[in-house]
Parts: sequence; C-alpha cells; structure tokens
Amino acid sequence: MSDAAPIAGLRLGIDVGGTKCLGVVLSPGGEVATELRRPTPRGGGSLPVLIETLTEMVTTLEEECGVIGTVGVGVPGLVTYEGVLRAAPNLDGVADFDVAGLLGARIRQPVRVDNDATCGALAEWKLGAAAGTRDMMLVTLGTGIGGGVVAGGRLQRGAHGFAGEYGHMVVDPDGPPCPCGRRGCWERYASGSGLARLAREYAIGRRVSRVIELAGGDAESVRGEHVQQAAREGDADSMKVIDAFGRWVALGLVNLTNVLDPQCFVLGGGLAAGADLYLEPIKRWFEELLYQPHLRTIPDVVFARWNERAGAVGASLLHEID
Amino acid sequence: MSDAAPIAGLRLGIDVGGTKCLGVVLSPGGEVATELRRPTPRGGGSLPVLIETLTEMVTTLEEECGVIGTVGVGVPGLVTYEGVLRAAPNLDGVADFDVAGLLGARIRQPVRVDNDATCGALAEWKLGAAAGTRDMMLVTLGTGIGGGVVAGGRLQRGAHGFAGEYGHMVVDPDGPPCPCGRRGCWERYASGSGLARLAREYAIGRRVSRVIELAGGDAESVRGEHVQQAAREGDADSMKVIDAFGRWVALGLVNLTNVLDPQCFVLGGGLAAGADLYLEPIKRWFEELLYQPHLRTIPDVVFARWNERAGAVGASLLHEID
Repeated sequence: MSDAAPIAGLRLGIDVGGTKCLGVVLSPGGEVATELRRPTPRGGGSLPVLIETLTEMVTTLEEECGVIGTVGVGVPGLVTYEGVLRAAPNLDGVADFDVAGLLGARIRQPVRVDNDATCGALAEWKLGAAAGTRDMMLVTLGTGIGGGVVAGGRLQRGAHGFAGEYGHMVVDPDGPPCPCGRRGCWERYASGSGLARLAREYAIGRRVSRVIELAGGDAESVRGEHVQQAAREGDADSMKVIDAFGRWVALGLVNLTNVLDPQCFVLGGGLAAGADLYLEPIKRWFEELLYQPHLRTIPDVVFARWNERAGAVGASLLHEID
Repeated sequence: MSDAAPIAGLRLGIDVGGTKCLGVVLSPGGEVATELRRPTPRGGGSLPVLIETLTEMVTTLEEECGVIGTVGVGVPGLVTYEGVLRAAPNLDGVADFDVAGLLGARIRQPVRVDNDATCGALAEWKLGAAAGTRDMMLVTLGTGIGGGVVAGGRLQRGAHGFAGEYGHMVVDPDGPPCPCGRRGCWERYASGSGLARLAREYAIGRRVSRVIELAGGDAESVRGEHVQQAAREGDADSMKVIDAFGRWVALGLVNLTNVLDPQCFVLGGGLAAGADLYLEPIKRWFEELLYQPHLRTIPDVVFARWNERAGAVGASLLHEID
C-alpha cells in the first residue's frame, strides 16, 4: 500500500449482505481486530432502517476499538462512482439509494461505497491471496459467479460499474437456460448450482451410487454437498463429477485469461470451502485448455484468504485506492 | 493526452507486419503527415536485415520530415515490458529478439516496442474512434480476432503481455476445431474466416443461391466477399448470413462486457471494410444478448478510424503513455 495516504485512526469496513451486515475493524497491521454482525433490515421502508443499522454499527465499533479513521461500505448491487446504489436485487426497494451521502451525514465523516465483489477483490489484492500482484481477478464461485478485477495495479470498475460480471459470459449458446434470459452462461456450469446440476445429470445416469445414497436415494435431490461428502470418503465416481466441474471452471478462467492475462486468479465464494477437492482438477484443466501454454507464464490459480469476510475487509480499504 | 510530456520533434511509428513494414510520421495535430512502406525481410537470417530496414526507414523519414522526437515500433507477437519480442508466428526465426535495444543502438535514441494490436488500441483510444474514453476495447476482426484493452484510463498488457487475445475465448466447447487445439473459439465464428465458414454452411444447404452464383457455382468456394457483394446487391438470403454472423460477433462483445464493461468497443481489422453491412446487426444483437440491459448504460459499438494504419499510428504514441 505504498500509494496510500497515512490513516489517522482505525479502518472500518461494513459488508451489507442480503441477510446480514458484517462490520470489521482492521488493525494497523491488516488483521481483523474485531467484528460485529447485525441482521439486514428487510421489507418495505427498510432502507432508512438500514442507514440506522449502519450508523449504530459504526458507533458500537468506535466505542469498542477507539477512533475510527475511515469508513467504507460494500453493497450487493450496482454502485455509481459517487457511492449511490443504483439497483440491488437482494435488498428491498433499492433505486438510486445514496448510501455514501446518507450514512456520511449521520456519522459526520466521508463514507466510500462500492460493490461487494469489487471490495472482495480489493481485500484479496491488498491483504490476501493476491498481495503483491498488479493484475489479478477474483472469481467468486457461489450460487452464481461474480468477481472483481485489478489490472495495471488498479481496481477496475468498468465505465458503468459492471466490470466483473463473469457469471454471464456465454460458454455454450445451446446450453441450459439462465434466469438472465440467455443460455449457457458460465454460472450455469461452474457455480454451486452448476455443480449440483452436473451431479444430478450423473445421478440420473446412475453413475454415482454413493452420491445418490447420501441424497436419500433420490437422484433429483442430489446437491453439491453430497458430491463433496462422497469424494471425501474416497468415492471414485464422485471424483469424476468434480473433475467435470473443474473443467468448466477452468474453461471460464481460460476465457478471462484471453482478455486480461492476470498474474493470478483468486477463487472465493461458497465453493472455497471445498478448495482441497477442487483446486487440483481446476489447475490441471486450466493448463490443458490455455492458449499457447508453451509461450507464456501460466497464471496462478489460488483460493481466497478472506472468504466471507472479504467484502468487509475490502470495504475497510476503500479509502486507500484512487 | 493531458498526461503526456511535451514532445520535441515529430513522432514516428513503424508497424512491422508479416509482409510489409509501414512507417508514419504524425503531425503535431495528430494526423499522418507522411508514410513509408518497405517489404518485411523474410527467411533465415532476416532479423538483422529487419533492423537495417527499420533504421533506413527512420533515416528516410527524418530526411523527409525533419527532427524526429520519438520512435515507436509495433510488432506482431508477444513483447516483454522491455521491448523484447519473445515470439512471433509471422516473422522468421524470432526468439527473444531485442527490437528496442538493437534499433535504439543504431538510431541512437530510445525506442519503445509493443504488440501491434496493443498499438492499434492506443491509436483508436488517443486519436481515433474511442478518443475521450477511459475504458475501451479494440476488437480486430480479420483472419482471426485480436485486440487491445484500455481500462481505467490505462493501456493494459496483462501480467505477461497476453491481454487482448479475445479470439480464443471459447464460446461453444463442442464447436468446430481451432488450430490452437481447442474447439469453438470465438474466432471460428466471428472473424473473416468465420464468416466464410458460416456462408459455406448456408451455401451447402442451398439457401443462398446468389452467393453461390458469385462464387462460380461451387458452394465450397464461397467466401466472405461473395456474401458482402450479394448483400450490397440487395440479396435477402445473404443478409441472413450477415445477421447470423452479427449474432456471433455480438455474443463475444457481450462476454467482454461482462468482464470489463467498457464505454465503447472499436471494431477494426479487415471486416471493417464492410462496416456499413455489419454494424446494424452487430449492435442489434449486442443489445439483445446483453445482461441486464435495463439497468445499465449500453456500451457503444463503433468501427475503427485507423484500420491498416492503426498499428503504426499507435506505435508513434508509445512514448506518451506510462
């Protein structure tokens, strides 16, 4: 963080999720000194309550930790450069909701706001698995796929704040329908729900008997966790599902490499909990599918350091970037 | 170019192509003041001859135009940050060829060297169709697909110099084989050779009689030019081929938008000659296929200003960027 202004006081970051808000205070050394959770207010008229919740979190953390130097907030949606939340599918009633302005007025200090996945990339870049790189991409493999981009030593938001929506790259135009209205989006294959779909396809073909057993005998009930559990027991059939899944993850990483050629990919999101199972097949397929592997330095593929704290840690760093 | 150091003397750029070298001198106002062509030396032992050719081009342009302030060179291959050409499939015998060092020693001034498509993006960004933007992507639709990326107001080369290799994004893992060893790369569909392949598929199905007629009656001989010519005559069947082609181009642009969300795409390369035919279907399909079009500002899609001069013009600007 050589380009950072010196911070007077502690750095506070809050990640607003669909169900909970997580606040962290960073120690000067970049560790999480303390954290605080509150339910995210929901329903009609909940947005003013959300500002109250965030205000209370700042006050409580300040009482606990001492002087707060900077405050940043990560939110699940499209954020303008001025910190206005344009739209957020997982919060109720959001349309041009000025989080930075409203919270800043309450706590009487400037607040920076950015997209939660962008914050996550910042956390992994500055203090996590991609520390020291100039070009990295965070890819979160959860229910869907999202992420954030650092290129040329700067966090990239795109011209309109939509950078990092990798999940909707089309990898097969005749593939399964996606709720976004198209077909064959990457997140139909390479997310948590993609793994479940793949596992059910194998299960319906009766090729993964232990997985079906774990799902209570019903192929239609198979989920990703059943595949993971069977694989940890040493079941060879379920390793085939994980291998096929790893190929789909790698295919998208290869596509991203052909656009930006990062030094490393950081994989985060819910599937990071199974990193030990997924990393080997993902890396193997990545090298197999990469364009001109003999001519290049192959980007590294690693799992995230911060996982569920990534958004809050990154939010705490928002004042330290351009 | 507000961040540029003032230039004493004229800006010279040379684009080294597989068959010819094109040199340009830019006027202070950013126009091409003069240009010069030489055949690219080929065959074993031609690399020292190439340095002689480039030296002679600099000398000749200096005699013609007056004091040369800066010299930049665009080359068709992978270039390190120090201006060493690592590999170049279309030049003979290249392996770690130090263009910047060797030419700089001959002309006794610093030379900057970069990939030709990266130079093309620089030309369109600083002096062309994307002037004034901070986030743009050049996509060259020629025999294959290449390009260059500007993100956050900076030209991006990637961690290892491979940014902008869009042509090998996989858009259909069961698609036709690509010489790169994979299947369904974007350039199998959306390049000049992709258009020809699409046209032959239609022709073999006997759905484009005028196109076949223009190809001498043989469906296997159909090329992109025949489709273009028939379309210009008003042939409705060939417009269907162009529409299908436009959909493939748009699909890739949508994928790129989901990664970097640029303000605009600049389309260049050989197919730019048919911009009047292609632009409408490409733009229509782009808006149709885009993720969440109702929430966002839709990136603009325009054709290049510089075309075959893009590499040389961009090379002449290499001293003006970080």
